[in-house]
Amino acid sequence: MGEEMKIKIVKIGGNVIDNPDILQEFLKEFAKIPQPKILIHGGGVLASRMCEQLGIQPNMVNGRRITDKDTLDVVTMVYGGLVNKRIVASLQAAGVNAIGLSGADGNLITSQKRPVKDIDYGFVGDIKKVNVPFMETVLELDCVPVISAITHDGNGQLLNTNADTITAELGVGLSEHHTVSLFYCFDKNGVLKDIADDNSNITEINFDTYQQLQAQNIIHSGMLPKLDNAFKAISKGIAKVWLGKAEDIASANQNQNRGTFIISKIR
Amino acid sequence: MGEEMKIKIVKIGGNVIDNPDILQEFLKEFAKIPQPKILIHGGGVLASRMCEQLGIQPNMVNGRRITDKDTLDVVTMVYGGLVNKRIVASLQAAGVNAIGLSGADGNLITSQKRPVKDIDYGFVGDIKKVNVPFMETVLELDCVPVISAITHDGNGQLLNTNADTITAELGVGLSEHHTVSLFYCFDKNGVLKDIADDNSNITEINFDTYQQLQAQNIIHSGMLPKLDNAFKAISKGIAKVWLGKAEDIASANQNQNRGTFIISKIR
Repeated sequence: MGEEMKIKIVKIGGNVIDNPDILQEFLKEFAKIPQPKILIHGGGVLASRMCEQLGIQPNMVNGRRITDKDTLDVVTMVYGGLVNKRIVASLQAAGVNAIGLSGADGNLITSQKRPVKDIDYGFVGDIKKVNVPFMETVLELDCVPVISAITHDGNGQLLNTNADTITAELGVGLSEHHTVSLFYCFDKNGVLKDIADDNSNITEINFDTYQQLQAQNIIHSGMLPKLDNAFKAISKGIAKVWLGKAEDIASANQNQNRGTFIISKIR
Repeated sequence: MGEEMKIKIVKIGGNVIDNPDILQEFLKEFAKIPQPKILIHGGGVLASRMCEQLGIQPNMVNGRRITDKDTLDVVTMVYGGLVNKRIVASLQAAGVNAIGLSGADGNLITSQKRPVKDIDYGFVGDIKKVNVPFMETVLELDCVPVISAITHDGNGQLLNTNADTITAELGVGLSEHHTVSLFYCFDKNGVLKDIADDNSNITEINFDTYQQLQAQNIIHSGMLPKLDNAFKAISKGIAKVWLGKAEDIASANQNQNRGTFIISKIR
């Protein structure tokens, strides 16, 4: 018990989950990554599509879904049930002993309903506490946690929670005693010098080069919040953050042509 | 590791799950039962209702749901997602460290798609193997497994599986090294001498009294398969089987006026 581990946390979003072929390809690659590892997922457009089919209108404010009671039920069904169990069954078939968890299971992630200021986001939870010892125990059992982006408030209420935030907070919690790398999968080959050229990925960025690339306007707009969050995670103890395509996840450490590593200032 | 445990396995069905008030009352009682304990549930009418809302016609043959691909998705969402995570969050609020599992999680229950004879039941799984060491490990962590009636075939396919059968097979598997009691909740106060009088419960039945009561036509029709299954479980190593109401679960061991215990022939 309590040995230091090198933990890889991988986050996938809608562009992977919504495409069964890409999801299966990703899971094969994910299976190749040495353990301990953790997979975190949301539910992509499946939840919105299910809301539509059930006559629940998706309600978006500032790019965020407002989670009313019916939407929370759909999110719980789709993220916590359908997507989570499909991924677990596929990983089991690939020889990975996966175990699907929400934030309520094993009291893994406690959150609080976001306070109403200008907007009432509904049943959306901001993370209060990650149960690091429980996560360590699961990893020490050689299980691979597959975590859906649902948390609970400890009083019986499930809450919809951002999967990127879960990834970062779980990573920071585990980094107190372990070396943790975060792998965020998205639809580009990392941070690109030329947005039109998917092979123009910058292989490594530290805080100094980040500031230079920003000054030169090579990194701008949509990439800025992703990189700001990555450096924030690193400042809190994460060893490195990778941004890239889901299908490149297993080769990320070997192949400099795939994705971008965000690393500490001091190296 | 490996100490003998006294394990209680409780199964709830539609009459509890479909009624939020009864479910909450049950969970409060379930919380009082000393650990180690396991809760097993299906999804009740919620799955059928969801199928209807999504325009999927429920297809029943001989009282069993035919599970086509769309129905399997609904069952996975409703049993594995909505019902499971709601129960887990409620138990966490009651101070019980619950962990929701399907048969795919931790490779807990492997099944095979039921062979087609007269009827093709679709994506329905007959249990092949229960992962007893994994279940023991979870119980030894002082977690309370909450198991949805979904299994997998080890090749990536999820399968709908009867919750009563899961309860019995898991119980029999655990009984090799542990003392296991099964508690089946249904809508009556156990086996009744007079079906019209809910207080006429027979408190204890062994195989001899069962045969007498059957000969006297006191036990008949719908109770026979339940009792046959109970005695079959006992013949395979289960210590005792209880039949009764969900709200009486915590007092089952103390109060002879609630439910019926099915016990071994030799006593």
